[in-house]
Amino acid sequence: MDRTSYIEMQIAIFNAVRKKSVEICAPLEPEDYVLQPMVDVSPPKWHLAHSTWFFENFILKNHLNNYKEFHPVYGFLFNSYYESIGKRTFRQERGHLSRPTVNEVLAYRNYVDENMRQLISEKGDNPEVISLLELGLQHEQQHQELLYTDIKFSLSLNPLDIKIADISEYVSSDNSKSWIEMPEGIYDIGFEGKGFCFDNELGRHSVFLNSYKISTGLITNNEWLQFINSRGYSNSLLWHSEGWSWLNENHIESPMFWEKNSAGNWVYYTLDGRKEVNLSAPVSHISYFEAAAFAEWAGKRLPTEAEWESASEKFNWGQRWEWTNSAYLPYPGYKKAEGAIGEYNGKFMINQMVLRGASVATPENHSRKTYRNFFSASARWQFSGLRLAG
Amino acid sequence: MDRTSYIEMQIAIFNAVRKKSVEICAPLEPEDYVLQPMVDVSPPKWHLAHSTWFFENFILKNHLNNYKEFHPVYGFLFNSYYESIGKRTFRQERGHLSRPTVNEVLAYRNYVDENMRQLISEKGDNPEVISLLELGLQHEQQHQELLYTDIKFSLSLNPLDIKIADISEYVSSDNSKSWIEMPEGIYDIGFEGKGFCFDNELGRHSVFLNSYKISTGLITNNEWLQFINSRGYSNSLLWHSEGWSWLNENHIESPMFWEKNSAGNWVYYTLDGRKEVNLSAPVSHISYFEAAAFAEWAGKRLPTEAEWESASEKFNWGQRWEWTNSAYLPYPGYKKAEGAIGEYNGKFMINQMVLRGASVATPENHSRKTYRNFFSASARWQFSGLRLAG
Amino acid sequence: MDRTSYIEMQIAIFNAVRKKSVEICAPLEPEDYVLQPMVDVSPPKWHLAHSTWFFENFILKNHLNNYKEFHPVYGFLFNSYYESIGKRTFRQERGHLSRPTVNEVLAYRNYVDENMRQLISEKGDNPEVISLLELGLQHEQQHQELLYTDIKFSLSLNPLDIKIADISEYVSSDNSKSWIEMPEGIYDIGFEGKGFCFDNELGRHSVFLNSYKISTGLITNNEWLQFINSRGYSNSLLWHSEGWSWLNENHIESPMFWEKNSAGNWVYYTLDGRKEVNLSAPVSHISYFEAAAFAEWAGKRLPTEAEWESASEKFNWGQRWEWTNSAYLPYPGYKKAEGAIGEYNGKFMINQMVLRGASVATPENHSRKTYRNFFSASARWQFSGLRLAG
Amino acid sequence: MDRTSYIEMQIAIFNAVRKKSVEICAPLEPEDYVLQPMVDVSPPKWHLAHSTWFFENFILKNHLNNYKEFHPVYGFLFNSYYESIGKRTFRQERGHLSRPTVNEVLAYRNYVDENMRQLISEKGDNPEVISLLELGLQHEQQHQELLYTDIKFSLSLNPLDIKIADISEYVSSDNSKSWIEMPEGIYDIGFEGKGFCFDNELGRHSVFLNSYKISTGLITNNEWLQFINSRGYSNSLLWHSEGWSWLNENHIESPMFWEKNSAGNWVYYTLDGRKEVNLSAPVSHISYFEAAAFAEWAGKRLPTEAEWESASEKFNWGQRWEWTNSAYLPYPGYKKAEGAIGEYNGKFMINQMVLRGASVATPENHSRKTYRNFFSASARWQFSGLRLAG
Repeated sequence: MDRTSYIEMQIAIFNAVRKKSVEICAPLEPEDYVLQPMVDVSPPKWHLAHSTWFFENFILKNHLNNYKEFHPVYGFLFNSYYESIGKRTFRQERGHLSRPTVNEVLAYRNYVDENMRQLISEKGDNPEVISLLELGLQHEQQHQELLYTDIKFSLSLNPLDIKIADISEYVSSDNSKSWIEMPEGIYDIGFEGKGFCFDNELGRHSVFLNSYKISTGLITNNEWLQFINSRGYSNSLLWHSEGWSWLNENHIESPMFWEKNSAGNWVYYTLDGRKEVNLSAPVSHISYFEAAAFAEWAGKRLPTEAEWESASEKFNWGQRWEWTNSAYLPYPGYKKAEGAIGEYNGKFMINQMVLRGASVATPENHSRKTYRNFFSASARWQFSGLRLAG
Repeated sequence: MDRTSYIEMQIAIFNAVRKKSVEICAPLEPEDYVLQPMVDVSPPKWHLAHSTWFFENFILKNHLNNYKEFHPVYGFLFNSYYESIGKRTFRQERGHLSRPTVNEVLAYRNYVDENMRQLISEKGDNPEVISLLELGLQHEQQHQELLYTDIKFSLSLNPLDIKIADISEYVSSDNSKSWIEMPEGIYDIGFEGKGFCFDNELGRHSVFLNSYKISTGLITNNEWLQFINSRGYSNSLLWHSEGWSWLNENHIESPMFWEKNSAGNWVYYTLDGRKEVNLSAPVSHISYFEAAAFAEWAGKRLPTEAEWESASEKFNWGQRWEWTNSAYLPYPGYKKAEGAIGEYNGKFMINQMVLRGASVATPENHSRKTYRNFFSASARWQFSGLRLAG
Repeated sequence: MDRTSYIEMQIAIFNAVRKKSVEICAPLEPEDYVLQPMVDVSPPKWHLAHSTWFFENFILKNHLNNYKEFHPVYGFLFNSYYESIGKRTFRQERGHLSRPTVNEVLAYRNYVDENMRQLISEKGDNPEVISLLELGLQHEQQHQELLYTDIKFSLSLNPLDIKIADISEYVSSDNSKSWIEMPEGIYDIGFEGKGFCFDNELGRHSVFLNSYKISTGLITNNEWLQFINSRGYSNSLLWHSEGWSWLNENHIESPMFWEKNSAGNWVYYTLDGRKEVNLSAPVSHISYFEAAAFAEWAGKRLPTEAEWESASEKFNWGQRWEWTNSAYLPYPGYKKAEGAIGEYNGKFMINQMVLRGASVATPENHSRKTYRNFFSASARWQFSGLRLAG
Repeated sequence: MDRTSYIEMQIAIFNAVRKKSVEICAPLEPEDYVLQPMVDVSPPKWHLAHSTWFFENFILKNHLNNYKEFHPVYGFLFNSYYESIGKRTFRQERGHLSRPTVNEVLAYRNYVDENMRQLISEKGDNPEVISLLELGLQHEQQHQELLYTDIKFSLSLNPLDIKIADISEYVSSDNSKSWIEMPEGIYDIGFEGKGFCFDNELGRHSVFLNSYKISTGLITNNEWLQFINSRGYSNSLLWHSEGWSWLNENHIESPMFWEKNSAGNWVYYTLDGRKEVNLSAPVSHISYFEAAAFAEWAGKRLPTEAEWESASEKFNWGQRWEWTNSAYLPYPGYKKAEGAIGEYNGKFMINQMVLRGASVATPENHSRKTYRNFFSASARWQFSGLRLAG
């Protein structure tokens, strides 16, 4: 490909990814953009601005000559966990900021996008710029998924039945399941080859696995209902000690978003409004604690991430993030990047469990078999489910 | 006045009061209407809807034939402290509701207003309707003041310097002060005569007062600065035990909204943006704890509400709510109204201190010398100041 | 009385009061002396040491020549709320201190007592010493009552049925009740005459009271059971808003210490072990919130402290502290003493309600009709009951 | 060995282990036995009773004919995390129970010991009894270490300088350190052979390790001081995100128990009283967060537990528990025992990090190279240190 075509392609990709974020938010009212009903959730307005700030701060300021910052305070307002860059906004107070307004945030996006296109035109073949551009777009895609999950959580609290989007989250998959038998041996794990990956996937390395079996399919709502009806949420022997405390303190009796309607049927909130639970759809919005208790109840276990990855070409995945029994820890030889960009992943490698796969909210082509998603054991506002191993 | 003129007058008053609430919010962006950064504060959208719900629930439903509720869920969403009417929205979660939108709330207001005008036309000379109408409008005015103070608090947290309105909150008063000497004797306290009052002002009764003196003027920012500079915030002997704990836990070192700018000067946030502290303006946004500590430091004391009321025609008041040293308790013979409307005042008569007067945010003619405002001893987001007695 | 007899009498009184504190604790095991299961409660060991420290710090150090402090760290450990004297022990951490041991505290008591007797012999006719001595003994008596109530609370949490003392707390009183009619007029309130009183009783002053009636008797457990059975704890209209929140957060459904046994009968923990509730005994261990809700349910009200005091010679009192509807505020002309001793009362005059009378745990002759006891509206571990007014 | 000798040996071992727990507590005063100043800590009295209850509940009740429970309430009071056995005492309320007294607990111990000896005499060659006996003694030994660490924490809060025992916790080790080079390859991990191990060590299995190096020695206080003096506690880039929040919320600036004395020197509390920090002793009482930050600062990393175990015969260990970078997760094929005894380990396998080695407080012969200790990442009241890898 010649330089011009390459640059044009880069700009086209950039435009497409950036546009998607705004499109996700299009059905929202301005009032919706401010909501932060729990600390894990960020307001949609913040996501749109923060992903923009990433380009401004890590790329434009360092690589575009004479770049003029859009607003002197935004760097403070839209920084996230990068605590080494100045004083941060406290995460739990993002929902206290009504300004800049949605329109001002969109103007910020346009300004940064214009400058990014200028930079790509000028330096779109500079390897460092290309690398940061790709990281910025992957980062934007991560926030696109969070836009869906955060909006879903925020609007679910409203007794008015708000419908935003139909992303097929409640659609059935093929429910037939069988066991894949995997032999004992040495497997190679981690990213290899061309294309983008995050630093936490690097350090392709060997692991020794005992023989194991892993299911071809996800656990469904129907199977989950059997767990509920067998009093799985009331049997402490199935649960981790910390999970049992969590369950009791939070009065957990079903996956997040489930409730019984006046007719006694289970309904759940979806981005397309409240619906009766589809029994043949994969279960979603469960915590690691719940996934592990279910596996215990079923007399099986969760796969490790190495088991999952080693078998991943033998089953379909992508409808739900799948809890594994692996803690999120560095691969052998893991190295953080220098400086602030190095805070991207390594600093979260404690008290998080790995999820593998992808969900209906994950942008197309964003995930891959080596992708390591991670959340705390109690998180359940993501589209999270499980696959059994044994 | 004939019936027609009387009805027209009632409608005109109704229209004027209702219009004022919307006007106060006019400079806001839709995103601003959702904010609830602390539990004492309600979102502007909620105030507009709740004051409307009051008319719908207590008047239209009972008195307008064939009145059709605007929306079946609003009664649940916009109820406030009236816990005897159904299941309430938890107060701290008002800021989690982006819907109904501002426009939907305005439509609700228009619908209820139209029906109220219809009702007034039909029954505007019915004493019970008139009485409830007056209560509804006074209630609306109370929320107009809260709109100002809640908006001020919410926007003050934003590092962007947001300007909404100039209500002269930082303007100097006449600072000359002298002492009024009041003789020992029996004074009559509480509301008397025609016109509206709240039930907590009723039960006009005699009190015996020792001789006392009370100042003609409010304490100014300049005097407060002397208190700060004399280390008044660091001397535990000046403070109530609970006030001292409150001060230390919340790192209180000045009135709310004060901060030192980079040049070392005191500035404060006002509805007209951040400004240097006007030394000759009355001090504002102080808690009862601070007012009492200042009085102790000055070798004086706060007046009781009976002292304030007995002397109130001898001094000017109205620029700031004034903390008294009286707890908010029932007057002799106090009776709550029957049913839900009876919850208006009586249920708050514990752990609250009385403030007398009015503030720059109080609607004209809303207050009077017998008016009993009340807040908890730590509240400081109101326009609250003090006058000394001895 | 000659000086020698007077001194001997002072020493005899001193000995008697000091001995009583140790006698109250005599049935305790060493392990019991450390308990502090909630912040309002202090360990028995702390009470014994703190009341001793009061004599050492306020009297011996200032008045006994060459007095040598018993231990350099005790001043820090056994100071209470006197925050102006050095750095205090955090109140909630008193139960974390196992040392000094009980025996060491008793040695501290003996040492201070010996020195106090020496001081009284030398200066027992010095008015300042006499005045401080009297204050110290009254202070000790206040802690004697707290010893009973704190021990009761601490041991009540133990499933083993611990019996410490029989102080007749569950004994019936005469239950016949009638109304005393009191005429409108000016009454004089506050302490007058010789003998000891606390500074908060001073400033005898006139109050104007409307005519009122007040009951000759206390509300009994039987009457309280009717309140429970009429679902008084479930009817929000009876409760203050803050009381209703308190009740729901703490799952309050009966007076403190009450529980239903396996046979469905109400039993309560007493210092003499668990017993069936005596229906004809006065109700005890209720909060102000509960007392006020009961009065509302009964169609009556609580008396003000002025009403109580004005009628107090017309009824019997002393079996229970009685909640009034008066906030704990200074009397006209109230002045705090200079320095640390001035912190005794004034600093608590916010968010507390006054109780009048005395209880079965109050040392004989400690209370009087002008005595102003006070606790927060939610406190219920004291022997607190109520008498109605109307 | 003949049966008689074998039984005698079993009884001798039983007596020795049981005696040690009481000996550890011998220097305590009765008041010390009640302390529980934080939820992780249990009162010494509770440890003595709980380890006794383990024998009574899991062995005597099931295996000794006609065994009569010592006290019907003790099963409730001294159960710990075994939530499947009846209603448990809330862990944070253990310090609220002064009864049974120390003497009563010792009587409970004697009674159970007598019965255990009887049981061993009768069935000391029954494999199930032997297996449970061994588990009970290992469990007792775990609580012996906790007795030391819990007592240390509790007494450290007292400003009086309490000395209980000299267990050489502050003694220097050999400080010379070198690197052991370990080649890439397959290593076998987990317990093998005769003798006791916990179920979490079972499932000996192969792991593939990249080549690595591991230090022969522990990090010393001197090295830690360099970390402090290089502002390691202030550099967010060295810390996990959760560690950085923990550090700021808890104002962590040094290992637990360290403070600067008036001369500006670092001192620390030991079971033998406060002492100047011994610079050549291994650092102790650090959290995983601190260990990981130190490793980052040093340009190295913590070993994984597989790396530690594989190299463990090439270095000395036993002076401090050593944080690894491994989360506490099940080994391949891990199976919980049936019933309540199965709750011993598996239920804690979330959000805990593994420590390897042993400490000065670990009973002799209690640990081994496959032993998996575990604590949460913020725990620091254990004798925890670190060894670097790279």
